[in-house]
Amino acid sequence: MTWQQIAAEKKAHQLDSVPKEWLGSDLPSAETLIVIDFPRESSVLSALDLEITESSVASLLSNLASSKWSAVQVTTSFYKRAIVAQQLTNCLTEIFVERALARAQALDEHLKRTGQVVGALHGLPISLKDQISIKGIDSTMGYVSWVGQPAEKNSVIFDILESLGAVPFVKTNLPQTLLSPETFNNVFGRTTNPYNRSLTCGGSSGGEGALIALKGSPLGVGSDIGGSIRIPSAFCGVYGFRPSYNRIPYAGCVNSLEGQDSILSVLGPLSNSLDGIKTFFKAVFSKEPWQKDPMIIRKRWSDEEYNLIHHGNGKKLCFAIMWHNEEIVPHPPIRRGLEMTKNALLAAGHEVIDWVPYKQAEISTIAVSIMTAGATEDFMKATAPTGEPIITSIALDQNAEAPSFRPSSAGTSAFELWQVHKKKRDLRQEYLQHWEDTVGKTGTGRPVDAIISPIAPFTAPPHGLMNTGTYTLWLNTLDYPALAIPVTKVDPALDVKQPREEFYSAEDRQNYEIYNPATYENAPISMQVIGRGGEEEAVIAMSEIVDEALRRYKAQV
Amino acid sequence: MTWQQIAAEKKAHQLDSVPKEWLGSDLPSAETLIVIDFPRESSVLSALDLEITESSVASLLSNLASSKWSAVQVTTSFYKRAIVAQQLTNCLTEIFVERALARAQALDEHLKRTGQVVGALHGLPISLKDQISIKGIDSTMGYVSWVGQPAEKNSVIFDILESLGAVPFVKTNLPQTLLSPETFNNVFGRTTNPYNRSLTCGGSSGGEGALIALKGSPLGVGSDIGGSIRIPSAFCGVYGFRPSYNRIPYAGCVNSLEGQDSILSVLGPLSNSLDGIKTFFKAVFSKEPWQKDPMIIRKRWSDEEYNLIHHGNGKKLCFAIMWHNEEIVPHPPIRRGLEMTKNALLAAGHEVIDWVPYKQAEISTIAVSIMTAGATEDFMKATAPTGEPIITSIALDQNAEAPSFRPSSAGTSAFELWQVHKKKRDLRQEYLQHWEDTVGKTGTGRPVDAIISPIAPFTAPPHGLMNTGTYTLWLNTLDYPALAIPVTKVDPALDVKQPREEFYSAEDRQNYEIYNPATYENAPISMQVIGRGGEEEAVIAMSEIVDEALRRYKAQV
Repeated sequence: MTWQQIAAEKKAHQLDSVPKEWLGSDLPSAETLIVIDFPRESSVLSALDLEITESSVASLLSNLASSKWSAVQVTTSFYKRAIVAQQLTNCLTEIFVERALARAQALDEHLKRTGQVVGALHGLPISLKDQISIKGIDSTMGYVSWVGQPAEKNSVIFDILESLGAVPFVKTNLPQTLLSPETFNNVFGRTTNPYNRSLTCGGSSGGEGALIALKGSPLGVGSDIGGSIRIPSAFCGVYGFRPSYNRIPYAGCVNSLEGQDSILSVLGPLSNSLDGIKTFFKAVFSKEPWQKDPMIIRKRWSDEEYNLIHHGNGKKLCFAIMWHNEEIVPHPPIRRGLEMTKNALLAAGHEVIDWVPYKQAEISTIAVSIMTAGATEDFMKATAPTGEPIITSIALDQNAEAPSFRPSSAGTSAFELWQVHKKKRDLRQEYLQHWEDTVGKTGTGRPVDAIISPIAPFTAPPHGLMNTGTYTLWLNTLDYPALAIPVTKVDPALDVKQPREEFYSAEDRQNYEIYNPATYENAPISMQVIGRGGEEEAVIAMSEIVDEALRRYKAQV
Repeated sequence: MTWQQIAAEKKAHQLDSVPKEWLGSDLPSAETLIVIDFPRESSVLSALDLEITESSVASLLSNLASSKWSAVQVTTSFYKRAIVAQQLTNCLTEIFVERALARAQALDEHLKRTGQVVGALHGLPISLKDQISIKGIDSTMGYVSWVGQPAEKNSVIFDILESLGAVPFVKTNLPQTLLSPETFNNVFGRTTNPYNRSLTCGGSSGGEGALIALKGSPLGVGSDIGGSIRIPSAFCGVYGFRPSYNRIPYAGCVNSLEGQDSILSVLGPLSNSLDGIKTFFKAVFSKEPWQKDPMIIRKRWSDEEYNLIHHGNGKKLCFAIMWHNEEIVPHPPIRRGLEMTKNALLAAGHEVIDWVPYKQAEISTIAVSIMTAGATEDFMKATAPTGEPIITSIALDQNAEAPSFRPSSAGTSAFELWQVHKKKRDLRQEYLQHWEDTVGKTGTGRPVDAIISPIAPFTAPPHGLMNTGTYTLWLNTLDYPALAIPVTKVDPALDVKQPREEFYSAEDRQNYEIYNPATYENAPISMQVIGRGGEEEAVIAMSEIVDEALRRYKAQV
């Protein structure tokens, strides 16, 4: 078979396990771009399905534990909504209804029999990025060559989630090679943005972004090596957390650039609320993941750090906003989102100062050098068996000349790679000092507590135009935890184009020129809250403070 | 100047800061091999000097804090003994008497003025392996090319130790390139073993081993990438701890293979007691080193883990002894040391089972592949400026054909290195499973609590014959913490050669053949206690249990 035939056959069987009645006949036409609220109108979803799928993770868990809702009911509701989301945005890869419902049934029986939940995530449906292996199910990662090779073992995170009582129920779409900030591959095709289907959902965890935005999953697990959790979170208006290296177990997942150990891809959660993010971390840490993955740091959830003991107990924090990175100035909606955040934090009694960028471009360059050191050989190896092409453009028109985000090079020697590592080490040391040196400017007696920065210099752009990791990649290089938080949405009346004469670079000018408010209408506006390495608990707590400040501020204005 | 002239001039000025009265005139002749007790006879050391230098770290700190002994007195006593050690074994590199005494004087004044100690290590002299940079002092690392280039900044560990009140007072010798388990370089020459100067002190932290064995320093800091703390600790009969990656800050030290981030060199303490080891960790962690070195894990000293809550509160532990690694069977004294340890632990009421080796050779091979990936280019770069030769043999006769421990190769590509990393990742995962699988054999309901293994297949051998990292390197690859503990000494009457017919390899046979009890007379016998990744506190606690069991057992037998 040709690679096209293999891909077509895989795609043709994608919905085989889905009951026919879950497939809506009242779907919007392809011309309907804004589909974010469609699930509420869909004939497939009952009032109870809507109530369940629009509940917070905390209420889902409490209603599951009290048996108000069965795991079968909750799984069914989310599955139905996920299938609607799939039909709207093409966000799923593997769908295994019987298996997930059987698991839910077993959980219900356990609870009935013992009166006890299986664990902290009892009955909670969880979506998983396609990389996360489940025994017996394909982990193609969008490579045609990997179709029909079901995983022989569960990934460690899957085992942990199951041991906590979760119900993994779908796998989600991603770009071929993962190293792309949009979501497009030769097996499952392209995922679109439910806020505006002419825009990209971002990548690489783009299936998660679109699915969770449509409330087709209460909690998803993505991965981030250069922005792959935060970019789709930002573009799809959901919460998403890129934790530090080696806190969430990656063992047993498939991946690109395996053995590239310099800038580690990390797993992290996406959800519609911070409560989902926090629940995920507390639950996973409670299972002592270092006993199952030797890379994982031996450290439990710290309530002390969550209570911000290193940040004045959270009473008066100092946030620093990086308005732009001296490379590419963000579009007006991003600026407005940052201003809204600043005002909300000031209104809540916190300090807000400006973050001074430090060698941002140099830090990103290091990351690109590392990833390209052996990338081409890696991609070739994965595509060679079927001869499928390596996707170099993410434009809608595959014949058009379009910018490619994905790095490629002829490769370097190990010794050259070591020299890049030295630069990385020095830059990490310098950035730490740069942060420490803010102590005199904060008025709190501490250095800046958290940085707030854009996630991209724009909201979700049209397909094929997401071509930069400039606001995300630096944090993977420095290994700072960063949590994406939605702020508001693009409003052409507010987000007008402003005249600008001076530019940092050709990319900066080009980015300025492509902006027009109409194209980006309705796109979510987000930002990220950034902490020090290993400070997951504190970043979650500080994000809760920012999120609550924004909620109050928006309610007043 | 030629490299020989540069080296000779450096060496000629090594003792410039030392008062003439500290240089003994009653030194033993070069033919005297056993010099371990010589300091007690030396006319240089007063009774008080002996009392001070033979005190434990705990009593030193308590007598310093109570002002029974001044920091100047304690520093002077250790300095005098260190200079004796230098004359006996050539264990030092940089000596800076005025500077250290001025520091001690300032500490004394602070205590007098405020009634408070500066920190947990107030007044404690500390020796530092030559890699550990001190502003204004050379960090040659034994490279002629680096002579006369004083460090521009302190290393982070130096700053932390000073902030704790310690008095860094000497730097210690090491092999050129560091990647050698003996101690020999073109600048400072060879360090010998004070238990028997015809034997090697081991390496790479060999200067620390010899100095601390002679009680010329109460606490030293070495580094370990393949055994470099544990080997000299074992050969010189002192305690030495190789912790997990990224717990003790390495930032600002000089190093070999900089940018080789796959198997990290780590800093760790050497001391004459476990109390010194524990004091070091508690003190360093209390200074939150992650605020100063971005690589460091954000985790304080855990009393919970030290109290062995994950090990049944330490009541009944199960140790597993790896008698040999199925590569090279250790010499009879090592076997006797392990048997003594087993009997001591059984007598103390613990379980002892056999550890089954698992792919030990494969794990070591991975490490060698990684280090050689760019090593030759690295060594060339460091030696080229003066043209000094790269030392390839550590034999006494530099013209003799002798085995070289140091790996070398033409280098590999980054992509090939990534493939090695994949194997490493898989082996780490398999070894974790191998360890977990012992749960059914221990009788405690837990997997094995700690492994006990040889540190080398022999006690300190004659110079030039230390040519294997087979019992240490695997732990750097797996990132398991391992603490070297002295057991006893070679006794030719007990450690007789036994007939053996079958061998695992040519190296195994060769190792068998070189043994004869007389050559190794008086050499210390040691072993290492090995825990899980990140389990520093528990390994210290379990080592205390082993050490105490041995003490009691030896007192009874």
